[in-house]
Amino acid sequence: GVNPDLAGERLAASFSVELLTASLDGSAERTRSRRAIVEAIESDPVFSQENQYFQSQNERYEAAVKRAVYLQKKIREMGWTENSPEIQHIHRCLSGDIALVLHRIFKRSISVLGSDKQIDKWIPLASDYQIIGSYAQTELGHGTYLQGLETTAVFDAATQEFILNTPKISAMKWWPGDMGRSATHTVVFAQLYVHGKCYGVHPFILQIRSLQDHSPCPGVTVGDIGPKMSFQHTDNGFLQLQNVRVPRENMLSKFCEVQPDGTYVRWGSQKINYFTMTSVRISVLADEVILPLMKACTIAIRYSAVRRQSKLKPGEQEAKILDYQTQQQKLLPQLATAYAFHFINIYLHELFNRGYQEIQGKNFDSLPELHAFSSGFKALVTQHGTSGVEICLRACGGHGYSLLSGLPSLYTRIIASCIYEGENTVLLLQTARFLIKCFVAASAGQPIPPSVTYLSSVKPGKCPAKDKVDFLSPEIYLKAYEQMAIRLISSSAAKLQHLIQSGVAKYEAWNQCTVQLEKAAKAHCHYITVKNFVETVQKLDNKAGIQKIMKHLCDLFALHGIFSNTGDFLYDGYLTAAHIDLVTASYLDLLAVIRKDAVPLVDAFDFTDKSLNSALGCYDGQVYQRLYEWAQKSPTNQQGNPAYGKYLKPLLQNTLSKL
Amino acid sequence: GVNPDLAGERLAASFSVELLTASLDGSAERTRSRRAIVEAIESDPVFSQENQYFQSQNERYEAAVKRAVYLQKKIREMGWTENSPEIQHIHRCLSGDIALVLHRIFKRSISVLGSDKQIDKWIPLASDYQIIGSYAQTELGHGTYLQGLETTAVFDAATQEFILNTPKISAMKWWPGDMGRSATHTVVFAQLYVHGKCYGVHPFILQIRSLQDHSPCPGVTVGDIGPKMSFQHTDNGFLQLQNVRVPRENMLSKFCEVQPDGTYVRWGSQKINYFTMTSVRISVLADEVILPLMKACTIAIRYSAVRRQSKLKPGEQEAKILDYQTQQQKLLPQLATAYAFHFINIYLHELFNRGYQEIQGKNFDSLPELHAFSSGFKALVTQHGTSGVEICLRACGGHGYSLLSGLPSLYTRIIASCIYEGENTVLLLQTARFLIKCFVAASAGQPIPPSVTYLSSVKPGKCPAKDKVDFLSPEIYLKAYEQMAIRLISSSAAKLQHLIQSGVAKYEAWNQCTVQLEKAAKAHCHYITVKNFVETVQKLDNKAGIQKIMKHLCDLFALHGIFSNTGDFLYDGYLTAAHIDLVTASYLDLLAVIRKDAVPLVDAFDFTDKSLNSALGCYDGQVYQRLYEWAQKSPTNQQGNPAYGKYLKPLLQNTLSKL
Repeated sequence: GVNPDLAGERLAASFSVELLTASLDGSAERTRSRRAIVEAIESDPVFSQENQYFQSQNERYEAAVKRAVYLQKKIREMGWTENSPEIQHIHRCLSGDIALVLHRIFKRSISVLGSDKQIDKWIPLASDYQIIGSYAQTELGHGTYLQGLETTAVFDAATQEFILNTPKISAMKWWPGDMGRSATHTVVFAQLYVHGKCYGVHPFILQIRSLQDHSPCPGVTVGDIGPKMSFQHTDNGFLQLQNVRVPRENMLSKFCEVQPDGTYVRWGSQKINYFTMTSVRISVLADEVILPLMKACTIAIRYSAVRRQSKLKPGEQEAKILDYQTQQQKLLPQLATAYAFHFINIYLHELFNRGYQEIQGKNFDSLPELHAFSSGFKALVTQHGTSGVEICLRACGGHGYSLLSGLPSLYTRIIASCIYEGENTVLLLQTARFLIKCFVAASAGQPIPPSVTYLSSVKPGKCPAKDKVDFLSPEIYLKAYEQMAIRLISSSAAKLQHLIQSGVAKYEAWNQCTVQLEKAAKAHCHYITVKNFVETVQKLDNKAGIQKIMKHLCDLFALHGIFSNTGDFLYDGYLTAAHIDLVTASYLDLLAVIRKDAVPLVDAFDFTDKSLNSALGCYDGQVYQRLYEWAQKSPTNQQGNPAYGKYLKPLLQNTLSKL
Repeated sequence: GVNPDLAGERLAASFSVELLTASLDGSAERTRSRRAIVEAIESDPVFSQENQYFQSQNERYEAAVKRAVYLQKKIREMGWTENSPEIQHIHRCLSGDIALVLHRIFKRSISVLGSDKQIDKWIPLASDYQIIGSYAQTELGHGTYLQGLETTAVFDAATQEFILNTPKISAMKWWPGDMGRSATHTVVFAQLYVHGKCYGVHPFILQIRSLQDHSPCPGVTVGDIGPKMSFQHTDNGFLQLQNVRVPRENMLSKFCEVQPDGTYVRWGSQKINYFTMTSVRISVLADEVILPLMKACTIAIRYSAVRRQSKLKPGEQEAKILDYQTQQQKLLPQLATAYAFHFINIYLHELFNRGYQEIQGKNFDSLPELHAFSSGFKALVTQHGTSGVEICLRACGGHGYSLLSGLPSLYTRIIASCIYEGENTVLLLQTARFLIKCFVAASAGQPIPPSVTYLSSVKPGKCPAKDKVDFLSPEIYLKAYEQMAIRLISSSAAKLQHLIQSGVAKYEAWNQCTVQLEKAAKAHCHYITVKNFVETVQKLDNKAGIQKIMKHLCDLFALHGIFSNTGDFLYDGYLTAAHIDLVTASYLDLLAVIRKDAVPLVDAFDFTDKSLNSALGCYDGQVYQRLYEWAQKSPTNQQGNPAYGKYLKPLLQNTLSKL
């Protein structure tokens, strides 16, 4: 049965959970289709995550390979197609606990960078899993800065081959997923040399393991990089190459080619590559960041409605911890953030789809804007998502610290998103570079992209709010965010200009401004996220019940941002101390309002118990029973205690006689 | 050999590393003694942490028990005494990777709460490890709120026994260390009932496992609670009791007793218990929080002086990442924090030693102050320590995410310190309660404890700084911190009073102020930490070289606090926007200054490579070689790949013919 404390929370819902779920999915039909897939997957024991928290790295890897191969078979049987909604539902449902994910990147890179002939040869083999691919870019000594890669590919005109080498240890490929133990092939990035001249980094298709017995090919040293904070199921690998030869045809050659005599030819635009990288950054957000944040909120909020601790009112029973203002202040802003990020993700996908269509029509004008957006929002969403999951974990006290809560695994995985696909600081500085350019253009009266037109509306002033309810008006808080973002961008631009004018070299001036530039880029993304939340709420006018609660969440998200960064709003006097008091009052009032709907708001995310895989977060709220049942299955309780016989028994053996 | 990039950093040191190390240790003699112990321990293979990152929970537990038993033998051989400097050095050196730690708490609780007769009976057995003890307080459903414990102990006058029971699942003991698989005995806390009347929570000595074969005693269900985010080596346990009988003599009875006829007698003061709890909170800070933060700084800063990424100046080689302002802004404030916390820890220990002496002279006046300090600083230090380690981890990019960096283990362990020994929010609110009382007393002209006398000096005004160098004056920034702390405390007090006067019940008014009260308590502790750093630097006047660099770190710590919380300083106009610009300028200047000494400043922490156990943080900076060597030892590379034969081979077997 459902814990009565949790059942009570649901009776009090001010809106229809089912309607909100459908709205988040896009339609009730999509919800139904998703649920059917989830049921099919979860009823299959191969996909069970039941013992995950007890498994070693080797066990996790083996299970993940099994799943990948089995899923492939299932997809073929069911006739599902790549990129179909079904595949998206499946990946949501598997929580990424599957191998051969890089195989898809291997295929995508060949499709995008390969010639038609290369595509015809390799894609069918890869699609049938007759070869297993990986993607080898990062090196021990080189990550984000692609031009610094040290692996070499020297053209040998005599044999019509490229000779691949790892000239020193820092040039070893390091991190590529699926490469450590699974892949037979990889796309490897290396500095191309022809007749002694370097042409920069190029991609090559390389076989790394025998198709007969899976042993490394001659000249290839390959293995697993060992344990990581999470991703135990993935065989991230290392790869060292010693005079490994690949035929001339294996250099991916949609945009350039080395001809038989060594002539290097380049054609077409490379901008499309740029777009691919950009879109990958956005594509990880939903499954790797926003869903985990939603799961963490679900676990922590349900648990907080069940867990009782201390007395709030003397003489009464112990209070639900969700009734403490400090607990609300921890969890409810994360809940609002999860919704805000769900909506900004939709916005980003729409932006990218429009951009993609323009690009297909050979119009590349929106690329800088798309690049700036993907960089900045990747950084903002992963950063807030990570800190949100950490807050949820800590808000569950000791039990949150048990792996059985599910929260540690969510945390140790989501934190990787701050690092992969571009380190966040580097990305934010790319966004900042775009913003500074736009700001300077706007100041000179030149046209700027639509998303940043606000930069030309510099009108210093004061916030007109007079009462705490005024801060529940989106116009009021949006204007405050806008002013704040403009000020941070313009003051960074001014500092940069001042340094350069006073004789500091450009690169050094830039470095001296980076702490402030990073902050400005964050402020821009934060503003756009609030603005998009406001616009999303406005569009919900045909769903009154949902619109009302979403408006509360939007207000909370916006006011929490002000409450947590008062200095940025007070600095130029746009908000006064009296305004901050009003914001604080409104913000704290909202916590109490949203608290009433907190459980239905996480129920609407519609996670099954199996996908949450949490003893604390199950729908029925029977947290203590489940912790106890799960703990009993732990290997620490299953395999005897050799330490007793070896070390403790000798100490204890004469005690009885002395007691 | 040492990586030349790192060697160069050391040549440029502006101070003597050896002198600073001695200063941190207290004396050069203490440094020598510590190094001798470290060498003795590290040369012994039993204490090797070499394979730690590859081990399962079962393996970690077994190794930790082995160490505990072996260490005990060694301590006896060497004639070291409990609480001696040697034992402190050993624990620093083992990084807490040892079992039977709760055995010490078992002994301490008997020493403090037991009668002389109980002490005479149990302490010698425990000291000889003829029994193994644990400490069973926390339950599945109850943590910080001790009065809520549900385990019962009913006195049976007929047999002169207590009957212990776990009346429901939430009453099960959960979390006690060493209990899951090791302990034979425990001190268990239960609600005492005599003749149907409840006398509240009392401690009882209980045998839980047979001394003959280690099987659970009749009526006892005991086991391990399963995997956690860290502490794999510790067998945190569960314990369920069904009509388990212990003799009347087993209730710890220094302060109260149930007499044979059931008469309950209480005598003496319980305040000393209060002091014990308080002192445990402080005693965890050094080994569990400050040392891990110092280690994380050592790893991240050394790595950042070796890792090169992108070009700072066009045409030059790639730059050390430590030369980027954004990297300095991540790491150097953590370094300053590590020093600040080292010094506040000394301050807290001095405060407690004085308090202990007063208490031994039956003067309990300082207890509320000590309690408030231990609560607030435990929260502040663990919170900033945890976020500091996370920043260090993320600042090392992908390699920081590898377990081999040592950083994930530091993080997953330090985060527990925010939860155990009192949840941080609960603790900060206890500090806030003390501060509000003192503030109200001060406003009424009553005397208040010396550490909070600043609360009576409310003189609103404006900061007199005119130039950025003015913010390198401790007087200037201390005054700003003081004003800010007073304002946050006084405005919380005012809100509380206002709510109560307008008819809100006291407990509800308190709850409505807790978000602000928590912030006020943090501000107080932050202010005291800055103040103590300033005073520590002043006392270094006989060591000019060290004083100079410590002054820089102190300034950085103080200005980083303002830079990160500008709103709290701008709010009442004590600092203006122009002041914030000066603070920012001075803060960014300091980053560049301290960067020059960053490596020597972490070298001074004097960690051996073995105790860092990090492929990135070793003294010689040979990070890539070490990552590669260590990865090759991973079990993922040692035990074949069963997944190939089972799942991949069937896919690949016909590929050759098609290529």
